[in-house]
Amino acid sequence: MTGLAARKSFGSDNHAGTHPDVMRAIVEANAGDAVAYGADPWTERATGELKRLTGAEGEVYLVLNGSGANVLGLGLLLGRHEAVICAETAHINTDECGASERILGTKLLTVPGPGGKLTPDLIARRLAGRGDEHFAQPGVVAVTQSTELGTCYSLAELRAIKEFCAANQLRVFLDGARLANAAAHLGCSIAEIASCADVLSFGGTKNGAMGVEAVIVMRPADAVNAPYLRKQHMQLSSKMRFLAAQFNALLTDGLWLRNAAHANAMATRLAAGLAEITGVEVMYPVQADAVFARLDPDHVAALRRDWTFYDWNESTSTVRWMTAFDTQENDVDAFLAAIAAVTRTVSV
Amino acid sequence: MTGLAARKSFGSDNHAGTHPDVMRAIVEANAGDAVAYGADPWTERATGELKRLTGAEGEVYLVLNGSGANVLGLGLLLGRHEAVICAETAHINTDECGASERILGTKLLTVPGPGGKLTPDLIARRLAGRGDEHFAQPGVVAVTQSTELGTCYSLAELRAIKEFCAANQLRVFLDGARLANAAAHLGCSIAEIASCADVLSFGGTKNGAMGVEAVIVMRPADAVNAPYLRKQHMQLSSKMRFLAAQFNALLTDGLWLRNAAHANAMATRLAAGLAEITGVEVMYPVQADAVFARLDPDHVAALRRDWTFYDWNESTSTVRWMTAFDTQENDVDAFLAAIAAVTRTVSV
Amino acid sequence: MTGLAARKSFGSDNHAGTHPDVMRAIVEANAGDAVAYGADPWTERATGELKRLTGAEGEVYLVLNGSGANVLGLGLLLGRHEAVICAETAHINTDECGASERILGTKLLTVPGPGGKLTPDLIARRLAGRGDEHFAQPGVVAVTQSTELGTCYSLAELRAIKEFCAANQLRVFLDGARLANAAAHLGCSIAEIASCADVLSFGGTKNGAMGVEAVIVMRPADAVNAPYLRKQHMQLSSKMRFLAAQFNALLTDGLWLRNAAHANAMATRLAAGLAEITGVEVMYPVQADAVFARLDPDHVAALRRDWTFYDWNESTSTVRWMTAFDTQENDVDAFLAAIAAVTRTVSV
Amino acid sequence: MTGLAARKSFGSDNHAGTHPDVMRAIVEANAGDAVAYGADPWTERATGELKRLTGAEGEVYLVLNGSGANVLGLGLLLGRHEAVICAETAHINTDECGASERILGTKLLTVPGPGGKLTPDLIARRLAGRGDEHFAQPGVVAVTQSTELGTCYSLAELRAIKEFCAANQLRVFLDGARLANAAAHLGCSIAEIASCADVLSFGGTKNGAMGVEAVIVMRPADAVNAPYLRKQHMQLSSKMRFLAAQFNALLTDGLWLRNAAHANAMATRLAAGLAEITGVEVMYPVQADAVFARLDPDHVAALRRDWTFYDWNESTSTVRWMTAFDTQENDVDAFLAAIAAVTRTVSV
Repeated sequence: MTGLAARKSFGSDNHAGTHPDVMRAIVEANAGDAVAYGADPWTERATGELKRLTGAEGEVYLVLNGSGANVLGLGLLLGRHEAVICAETAHINTDECGASERILGTKLLTVPGPGGKLTPDLIARRLAGRGDEHFAQPGVVAVTQSTELGTCYSLAELRAIKEFCAANQLRVFLDGARLANAAAHLGCSIAEIASCADVLSFGGTKNGAMGVEAVIVMRPADAVNAPYLRKQHMQLSSKMRFLAAQFNALLTDGLWLRNAAHANAMATRLAAGLAEITGVEVMYPVQADAVFARLDPDHVAALRRDWTFYDWNESTSTVRWMTAFDTQENDVDAFLAAIAAVTRTVSV
Repeated sequence: MTGLAARKSFGSDNHAGTHPDVMRAIVEANAGDAVAYGADPWTERATGELKRLTGAEGEVYLVLNGSGANVLGLGLLLGRHEAVICAETAHINTDECGASERILGTKLLTVPGPGGKLTPDLIARRLAGRGDEHFAQPGVVAVTQSTELGTCYSLAELRAIKEFCAANQLRVFLDGARLANAAAHLGCSIAEIASCADVLSFGGTKNGAMGVEAVIVMRPADAVNAPYLRKQHMQLSSKMRFLAAQFNALLTDGLWLRNAAHANAMATRLAAGLAEITGVEVMYPVQADAVFARLDPDHVAALRRDWTFYDWNESTSTVRWMTAFDTQENDVDAFLAAIAAVTRTVSV
Repeated sequence: MTGLAARKSFGSDNHAGTHPDVMRAIVEANAGDAVAYGADPWTERATGELKRLTGAEGEVYLVLNGSGANVLGLGLLLGRHEAVICAETAHINTDECGASERILGTKLLTVPGPGGKLTPDLIARRLAGRGDEHFAQPGVVAVTQSTELGTCYSLAELRAIKEFCAANQLRVFLDGARLANAAAHLGCSIAEIASCADVLSFGGTKNGAMGVEAVIVMRPADAVNAPYLRKQHMQLSSKMRFLAAQFNALLTDGLWLRNAAHANAMATRLAAGLAEITGVEVMYPVQADAVFARLDPDHVAALRRDWTFYDWNESTSTVRWMTAFDTQENDVDAFLAAIAAVTRTVSV
Repeated sequence: MTGLAARKSFGSDNHAGTHPDVMRAIVEANAGDAVAYGADPWTERATGELKRLTGAEGEVYLVLNGSGANVLGLGLLLGRHEAVICAETAHINTDECGASERILGTKLLTVPGPGGKLTPDLIARRLAGRGDEHFAQPGVVAVTQSTELGTCYSLAELRAIKEFCAANQLRVFLDGARLANAAAHLGCSIAEIASCADVLSFGGTKNGAMGVEAVIVMRPADAVNAPYLRKQHMQLSSKMRFLAAQFNALLTDGLWLRNAAHANAMATRLAAGLAEITGVEVMYPVQADAVFARLDPDHVAALRRDWTFYDWNESTSTVRWMTAFDTQENDVDAFLAAIAAVTRTVSV
C-alpha cells in the first residue's frame, strides 16, 4: 500500500487496485495488432455481453471514466435546451466540478433527496415552470444506483420513477458507477434495473477494473449520436481492446457480481460491528459498499492517524467508510477494533 | 493479430499493442491500495520526470487520450472568446469530430500548411481582423510535432513560430501525440522542442503505452486552472497510478526514444524501398513513422486484400502507411515485396 | 392598454411602455446615417455619461436585454472553469431558462438568501471545496440590487460582501436590472453602489426605456474581452444609436432617478394601503417597485378577473404586484379598493 | 449625418436610420401597458403576417439582431454533435466573431463558394467523412440569400440545394438578413424562397427597421425548442411590441419590398455608372444592394477622404459599396462623379 497510511484503505472503492483476473485479461489482450477505436473482437464481445446483461436493444459504448459516462449518458438524452433533475447529493452535482454544466450547458435542478434518492413527488416539485420559456425545462431525471449515500433504490422505487417520467415526458438516466453493488444487494438482474432507465452507465472501475465504464443505451433511437458525442467528449480510446478486456474479465463467471457482493458484505460486516460500539451513529441503511457514520470529531482525528478515509460532512462530523472487492474480513475487524478503541479511550 | 488482415498492420501506430516493459510496469503498479486521482507515488514520479524532461516550470497533467490532451491544452491557453490558428491538416481540425469547437466553443482558423506545417507568414494571414469585434480573435497557434503528414518542424522553424507568436500576443500549443518521433528525428532533447511552446502534449499511446498522454504546462501561471479543467473535461482518472506507471516505463532508460527511433527507422526503410518501386510516389519527407504515398487506385485495392492501411485522400489515391515501435524489418520488407508485386502485375 | 385586463397592469415594470422623453430621443436619433455598431456620437455620449455616473474606470457596453447583460457581465469575470455563487431567488437562477449554464457553461452555486440577499456568511458556505478539483470552484458572487424580492441591500451590506469577496479571491457581479430603484431607495449615488462591484449592469428597460441595458466594467483589465464576448453573445446592435439615445434621455436631468423614485413611491403607497386591509400579508420590506403579498387563493382568483399580476409562489399563495414609472396614484388607489373589496366580500 | 464623412454613406445598409413608417409604428405602439415577452397583439399580428408571407406551418420568433437570428436558426436544426456546411464567405463564418462555435459548439465546414454561393457539388465535398466518428458530421447547410457578395441564388439553384439536402439527410438554414433584396431581385414571393429552407431568417434591420429580425420555422416539429433557445440565447425582448411594430410597418402595403427594390435599384444604378469608368472593376453580378469593386489603392484612399465605405479585401484592393432604402439617385450620381474624378486625376 502506497501513498496511504499503512493499513487497508477505507477511503474509497477506487483506492483498490485491479482485480487479478482483470489484470490477466489486459495482459492477454496484448497480443499483436488490433484495429483501433473499438473495431476489435474484445470490444465486440464486451459490448455484446453488456447488451445481453442489460437487455439493451440500443448500443453499448465503452468510456474512460465515470464522469465521462455520466456526461455522455445525459448528453444522449437531453434536448439542446433542457435541464436535469437530480438529487442534491448526486455525483454529477457534487463531485464532477460542474462537468455537466460545462460540457453540456445544462442546468441541474436539484432536490434534497433523503438517503440520496429521488421519488416521483420530489421530481414533481421541479416541474412547475414547464412550458414557460423563462424557466429551465427539465428533460431528464438522473438517478444513481446504488446511491452516493450507500443506499439502493428498490426495483419498485425505480419503476415508480420510470413510470412517472414516462407519463411526464421525462427520460431517465441512471448513474451506475456502482450498479453491480445494487444488483448484488437487491438480488435482481442488471436487466431489471436497466429496464427502468433510458440510458445507464455500468461502472467497471469501482468493481475491480483498472479503469473502464460502459454507457448503455436501451433503445436504438437514443444511440444515433453516441459515437460522435463520445469522440467529442474525448471518451474514445484508441487501444480500445484494453478497456474491453476489463469488462470481459468482469463478465466472466459473474466476477462483477462476486466482487460487488463481497464489497457489500464487508460494508455490512462493518456496520454490524459498529452497532456494538457506543458513540458511532450509522446514518443510512447500509445497502452497498459504504458506511456513513457520525462520531465525535476527536475520535475521527484519532482514527485518521492510522487509517485512510474521508470526511463526508465536516460540519456534522460525518465520515464515509468504504469497502472494496479486496477488503478482507480481518481488515474490517481491525478497523472495528481501532474504532472501538478510539471511542473508548479518547476523552470527548 | 486480431480484427485485422493476417499481417503486421501499417494502418496506424495505435494498432500496435502495449510495449512489454510498459505492461510490466502496469502489472507491478497493481500492489494494494493507492490514493486515487493522482496523489500516489507513481504519479509523483511520472510528472516529476516529465517536468525534468521538458524543462517545464509549470505542471504536468496525465490525461486519458490525445483528444483529451489537445482540448485541455488549448483550453488552458485560450481566453474565453479566442480562436485557434492551425494547419488545415491539424488533427484537432480533421480527426476529433469537432471536439475543440464543442468543448471549448472556439473557432479554428485554418491555413493550408504545406507538409502539415505552419510558418510565421501563414500565421500572419489570419491576423487581419484583430481588434475588430466582428472577427474571430486568434489567441493560440496550434502546431503538431511531428506533424500529421509525417514531417517534423526543425528547431529553427519552431523557434521562428514561437518568436513570431510572442511578438504578436499569441500563445503556442504543441500537439505532441508523436513528440517522441520528432525528438528522435531531430536528435534533439524534448526540452528544446518544449521551449517553443507554452503548453504541449507528450503522447504515450502511440509510443508504446496502453493509453496515456501528458499535458505539460511550461509556466506556473498557465497551470492555475488545469486541475479543474481536466476534471470538467472528464480526463481525470481515478486509478491514476496505472496511467503514471506507463510513463514511468517509457521514461526508464530512454524507452520512449528507442521506441520512436525504431518506428522512424522502419518508416525510413519503407520509404527507401519504395524509391525502388515504379508507380509509387512518396508525398512528403519521411521524418517520423509515416509514409504517405500515391499509387494507382487498383494497386491500392489489390494491396488491401492482404494488408491493413488507410486511405488518406481517396480523390488523389493517396494512402498512409504507418510503422510502430513493434514493426519489424521483415514486416517492412514483406510489405515492400507486396507493393512491388502489386505495382508490377496489376494492369492499370 | 392591450393584451391585458382593462386596467393598469401590476404585472411587471416591463408591462409599461416607453417614457415619452425616451421615445422622443429615439425619434430624434433618426437623422440620416450613422456608423453602425456603436461608433456614433449617441453611443459615445451614453457610455461616457454612464462611466461618470458609475465612476467606472473600465468601459461601458450597451446590450439588448437583461439576460444579455447578466450573461455578458458574468462571462467577463469568470475563469473558464469557474462557478457563480448566487441567491436561490436570483434572476439568473430562476428566470433565464438556464442561460448562464448554457452560454457560459458555468454552475450556479445557490444559497437560500432571506429577502433575496446574500451575506458574507451565506457566501462562505459555498467555499468549502475550494482547491479540490472534484468541486465546482466559485469565482464570482452575483448579487441583485434591488433584489428580485423588492428589497435593497444597504451600502453597508454591499460593502461587506465586496470586502469579503476581495479577501477571498472572488469577484462581484451586480445585476442592476433595477439599479435605479435601489439608488432611489437608498438616496445614494450609483457610484456608491457600483464601487461594490467589479462588473455591474444598469437596467434601462424597467426604468422607462424601450429596451436597453448597460454592462459597466469597473476596471480596464476586465474589459479586454468585452467587445468580442458581446458580439459572440449576440448582444451587439448594428443601429446602436437607437439604444444609446434611450440612455441619453434617461440620463438627462435625472430622468432615471425620477422614474425610479416614482415607481418606488407607488409601491410604498400600495404597501401602506395594504396595511389597512385584513387578510393580506406583505412578505418583504418594500424598498423598490414591488410588493409581495400573501392572501387567500380565492381572493387572488377574484382579483385577477379585473387586474393583471403574477403568482410568485402558487403553493404559498404569494403574488407579486409591481409598479412602474407610469403607475398613477389613482391606479394604486383603485387597486387597493379592489383588494379591499375582494378580501371583504369573498367567502374563504 | 453623424459620425461619418459629410455625404451619404455607402458603408453599409445598416448605416441608414429607421424608415419613417417604421418609426411611426414604434411611436404608436407606445400606448399604455402590454404584456411582456410577446403576448401582445402587435406580436400576434407580426408573426401571423410573417407566417402567411413565408408559408410557414411552424412558428415565427422575433429576435434582436442578425447574429441572434442565425445562431438560433442553426440551433433549432442542429443535433447536439452536428456541424454546419457553409460558404467561406458566409456571415456566420466571417463576421460574427465565432458566435456559432461559441454558442452552439458546432464546427463550420466551409467551402470556397464562387460569388458567395453553395451548390450541391460543393456541399457534397464536405460529406466524405459521414458515419466516421473522427470526422465532424454535417447536419445543416447554411445558405445566405441574398449573399454576402451581393448576388442572389436563383430559385432553381435554391431548389437544387434543398433537394440535394433532403436526399442526404441535411437540413437547410437560410440566412435572410437581406431576404427582401433577393425577393425584389428575383421577382418571386418570399414563400418561394422560404420553401427551400427548413428554417430561415427574415431581416428587418437592413430593410428599414430600427432593429429586429424574424426566425421562421417552416415545420412545427422544428419549433418545439425554439422559445427556450431564444431565451437562453438572450434574444427574448421584454417589450416585444416595439419589435413587432417594426415588422408590422414593413409588412404594410409591401413597404419591405419597396425598400428592398429601391436599394437594389440604387446599387444597379451605381454599377451601371461604374461601367463607364475606366479603372474600376465590378467583381460580382449586382443582384442586391451591394457593389464589390476593385480599383487602385490610391484611388480608394483618395475616395475615402469624402466618402464612407469599407475595404472588403485589402490585399486585392477590393471595396464594398452598399446602398440602402434611403439612398437617393443624386447620392449615387455624386458618388459616381467622385469615383470618376478620382480615377481620372490621381496618378497611379
